[in-house]
Amino acid sequence: MKIELGENRYGKAENRVVRITREQGTHHILDLNVSVQFSGDFADTHLTGSNAKVLPTDTQKNTVFAFAQKYPAMEPEAFGLKLCEHFLDTQTHVTRAEVRLEQYLWDRILVDGKPHPRAFQKNTSLTRTARVVMDRTANGGKEAFVSSGVEDLVILKTSDSEFTGFIKDHYTTLPEATDRIMATQVTAKWRHDSHDVAVLSKKDFAKSFTKATEKMLATFAEHYSLSLQQTLFEMGKAMITEQPDICSVRMSLPNKHHFLVDLSPFGQENKSEVFIAADRPYGLIEAVVNRDDAPDAGFIWPAW
Amino acid sequence: MKIELGENRYGKAENRVVRITREQGTHHILDLNVSVQFSGDFADTHLTGSNAKVLPTDTQKNTVFAFAQKYPAMEPEAFGLKLCEHFLDTQTHVTRAEVRLEQYLWDRILVDGKPHPRAFQKNTSLTRTARVVMDRTANGGKEAFVSSGVEDLVILKTSDSEFTGFIKDHYTTLPEATDRIMATQVTAKWRHDSHDVAVLSKKDFAKSFTKATEKMLATFAEHYSLSLQQTLFEMGKAMITEQPDICSVRMSLPNKHHFLVDLSPFGQENKSEVFIAADRPYGLIEAVVNRDDAPDAGFIWPAW
Amino acid sequence: MKIELGENRYGKAENRVVRITREQGTHHILDLNVSVQFSGDFADTHLTGSNAKVLPTDTQKNTVFAFAQKYPAMEPEAFGLKLCEHFLDTQTHVTRAEVRLEQYLWDRILVDGKPHPRAFQKNTSLTRTARVVMDRTANGGKEAFVSSGVEDLVILKTSDSEFTGFIKDHYTTLPEATDRIMATQVTAKWRHDSHDVAVLSKKDFAKSFTKATEKMLATFAEHYSLSLQQTLFEMGKAMITEQPDICSVRMSLPNKHHFLVDLSPFGQENKSEVFIAADRPYGLIEAVVNRDDAPDAGFIWPAW
Amino acid sequence: MKIELGENRYGKAENRVVRITREQGTHHILDLNVSVQFSGDFADTHLTGSNAKVLPTDTQKNTVFAFAQKYPAMEPEAFGLKLCEHFLDTQTHVTRAEVRLEQYLWDRILVDGKPHPRAFQKNTSLTRTARVVMDRTANGGKEAFVSSGVEDLVILKTSDSEFTGFIKDHYTTLPEATDRIMATQVTAKWRHDSHDVAVLSKKDFAKSFTKATEKMLATFAEHYSLSLQQTLFEMGKAMITEQPDICSVRMSLPNKHHFLVDLSPFGQENKSEVFIAADRPYGLIEAVVNRDDAPDAGFIWPAW
Repeated sequence: MKIELGENRYGKAENRVVRITREQGTHHILDLNVSVQFSGDFADTHLTGSNAKVLPTDTQKNTVFAFAQKYPAMEPEAFGLKLCEHFLDTQTHVTRAEVRLEQYLWDRILVDGKPHPRAFQKNTSLTRTARVVMDRTANGGKEAFVSSGVEDLVILKTSDSEFTGFIKDHYTTLPEATDRIMATQVTAKWRHDSHDVAVLSKKDFAKSFTKATEKMLATFAEHYSLSLQQTLFEMGKAMITEQPDICSVRMSLPNKHHFLVDLSPFGQENKSEVFIAADRPYGLIEAVVNRDDAPDAGFIWPAW
Repeated sequence: MKIELGENRYGKAENRVVRITREQGTHHILDLNVSVQFSGDFADTHLTGSNAKVLPTDTQKNTVFAFAQKYPAMEPEAFGLKLCEHFLDTQTHVTRAEVRLEQYLWDRILVDGKPHPRAFQKNTSLTRTARVVMDRTANGGKEAFVSSGVEDLVILKTSDSEFTGFIKDHYTTLPEATDRIMATQVTAKWRHDSHDVAVLSKKDFAKSFTKATEKMLATFAEHYSLSLQQTLFEMGKAMITEQPDICSVRMSLPNKHHFLVDLSPFGQENKSEVFIAADRPYGLIEAVVNRDDAPDAGFIWPAW
Repeated sequence: MKIELGENRYGKAENRVVRITREQGTHHILDLNVSVQFSGDFADTHLTGSNAKVLPTDTQKNTVFAFAQKYPAMEPEAFGLKLCEHFLDTQTHVTRAEVRLEQYLWDRILVDGKPHPRAFQKNTSLTRTARVVMDRTANGGKEAFVSSGVEDLVILKTSDSEFTGFIKDHYTTLPEATDRIMATQVTAKWRHDSHDVAVLSKKDFAKSFTKATEKMLATFAEHYSLSLQQTLFEMGKAMITEQPDICSVRMSLPNKHHFLVDLSPFGQENKSEVFIAADRPYGLIEAVVNRDDAPDAGFIWPAW
Repeated sequence: MKIELGENRYGKAENRVVRITREQGTHHILDLNVSVQFSGDFADTHLTGSNAKVLPTDTQKNTVFAFAQKYPAMEPEAFGLKLCEHFLDTQTHVTRAEVRLEQYLWDRILVDGKPHPRAFQKNTSLTRTARVVMDRTANGGKEAFVSSGVEDLVILKTSDSEFTGFIKDHYTTLPEATDRIMATQVTAKWRHDSHDVAVLSKKDFAKSFTKATEKMLATFAEHYSLSLQQTLFEMGKAMITEQPDICSVRMSLPNKHHFLVDLSPFGQENKSEVFIAADRPYGLIEAVVNRDDAPDAGFIWPAW
């Protein structure tokens, strides 16, 4: 029997970079959590302890901060591309560089109704995410897989949701529901179809992100839902239809149950008015929605 | 030596009530986390195990949900008052009822720029809190202490903050800073000066809350800060000055440090542009700001 | 109307100190989370922004680390006393110094059944806590209030617990239970009766802590419980009876509900075998148990 | 352009089952968090909203609790196998059933040094995990992929760890370290090599788990480490060598940095005695260690 090294990668996780950009009296914040990972020829450090091919994670961290100074006010996807290019260009034994980013959003504080130029309130109602995986191609070039996404986005609708017609078996106790609260916490990622680093580096990711999230939310609001699965599919479909360069959408939607409270012991009727918000267990609905001719996902999708 | 029972209380914590109110096609959400606590003549259950005077926490929970149906769309302070009154009225051996509430806010989802009547996005950028403590008075009546507040509110300013002129001793390494990022996560509570249940029950807590938080944020934004302590005092002072029925403000402000990253090893200058957001340790600034004639706080303030 | 500064304090929170002590081949870890707070003459920094009396929280942090080197292997209570003394001795305008400590425990890794001298596994089943509040006395001296405690200690018993004979009212649905699971997560603090800094500095806090927690756990295990309140009182009473220099015990015990699952729809009987562990809501039982002649608590107890 | 449904699955997550088994006066706890997921022919619910093929997640939950009563005191791997078999046997359109389990451990409370038969303290120093993925085979049978694992296991060594000889580039500031603290929080999973449901159902997973974790910990303690990568490989290699039916080990090891504090400004020398435990950023080392003839992993490994 022999023991071998399999898949492996390493890097510095959760570099908390805050980049301030000043335009005369008006300041801008870019607030990121940046994680870097390298794959490549790292057998030696695992097998013999030689670190001759290891760029320390501390150096990766320094690079992230230095690049934040050099390249101000970038979209997270573009900042990830910049870092991946640098690492592949300077570390010839690295075959794949990955950068994951979380962007925390800040709103300007309103003073007498007007946005203040240099004071901010954190907007935690949604975290913007991005991921870049850059590989070397057969011809010595580089190709990139880029996804954008959201996390921590909690949405709820009080009408237009039912759940009926499901399988009944020996263990079924759930009644059918023709009017229920539907609530979920969206984790979504969507892939951009180009793998060309030059093309991606010029893409307007800010505009794409805004359009994608607006469409996702509007579809959730307006779609009459027969199941959370159906709503998920409609949300993904609407996002791709509007922006076909988004070739694939992947969502993980916990069904945050709101149970109608039985008030009949107290002589009260509960006409879908009072609910208890449950923590656990929760349904978990996960699916990918694809453009039929979507290019391969490479390593950008964390498979299950 | 004798062993005695000291201070004690009990109740049901974290009842997650969601109350939907329907006005024709438009729905409203009241999303609360309600915790109840009783103090009173509870020596027996501690000393002998007799529960003859114990209203179970399960019954407290049922009451919270039943009242949410009976009294729709209340401000959290008013809902707390209603519950406290009920408990003191029906449980004669309870001498003090306390209700703590967290209200989670929901924005309407925008569809083509217009707020949807029945679909919502959770706004987690600020949690509204309220607390009601109701006691029996000497003459057999009831008096209430009510506070309102915020939690989870993260704010930051990129200018108009310095920290200089402090004590230097053997263990000092901190340089003076004439231009720094100031950031904090606000936990604030403010007391309403009336203790009259009837008066409090008619108060417009929604309007008061909006004015208080707007003034707090505007003061943070506009005040030139020589220390976080000074900013705290100015915020509290402005809140009381504008609404003198707020007789006292209590704040706990962690100083969320953003350290300037030293880029000189890489030949780069960092002109207050790139910061690392630190998790721990953090400064912690806590103070109460009072109207000079504020009535006694009773048991509404959790003392240190 | 005048606006005044009320209670206030400031300090550096959550200094994560790890102190290694080497005895030839055997190493020891002291792993602490240390928070410092000063009260005193700090009106100026709040009212005018003058920091002339402010020892920065950064300097407090440096002091904590420097003292960890100077005074190795101390019990957390003793380390807190040492820090408080230093701060009161050197900062004459500070009237009260407080230090809160959490100690994370580490077990030695077993290799072939034998404890390794330099490799450890974190024991998170219980966090040891300590708190020191040191005040100036009228005669220019110092007095200290010291408490010890535990957090994150989850305990459960599968027998000898019932809950019956409670009040029934309009909102009651809970059945009486003569055999139930009782589970809680203990947060406990206990005060030491001496306020003499010299006496306290020589106390064997390690031994006291071990005896207190062992007695607490054994009482929980052995006591036949008619209510969680009764169990709380018995635990505190047993701790004080065994070590009368512990003059007061304060506990906060969430009732971590385990609900019997109704399996009758599936034709199965559930003889107290299958439970669902609920997250929220939970009962919350809080009380102080005192030696009848316990000295005043000063500011060591966080009042409600 | 057509929009298609891609990979998808659904189920009930985080069913918190506590199963008590009574042997005369001695009780045993099995405390599990069970998550179920189905893959299969679920296009309809996504595309048309028809739930005719959907077994509700509520029914999955009921099944988990009912099975906990029927099959007491199982190892988590065996309980997962039992559930997967049931679901594939009764839901013909389900092609893959997955069950993930977390087992929370409980120690008996000691009373006068003796373990109490019915009172317990939660041991959170390590969470045991298991995962079962069951697929249908070409010939109409079933095959299972089973992994075991640990989470929340924090380990640290104070000697025998260095990090030298690494790449230096423009962004390097890290000095070489010949004596450092090495600490990590282990998330590990290991695969069992048989895919035969009958064979797996008879395996002694308890014994295998104990041996695997003991070997992992002993190797961490005893191995002289030139990098965390090397230590990871040695841990996996030792586990497989001892129990070759463990054909593959996958680990994710955050490098929990402990930085030596510079005490020289205070005239103190820090001879590897005082460290600050940092939260973020952290190095993250991930790798798989395989027996060279390990069978395919199927869908048991969450790929990156």
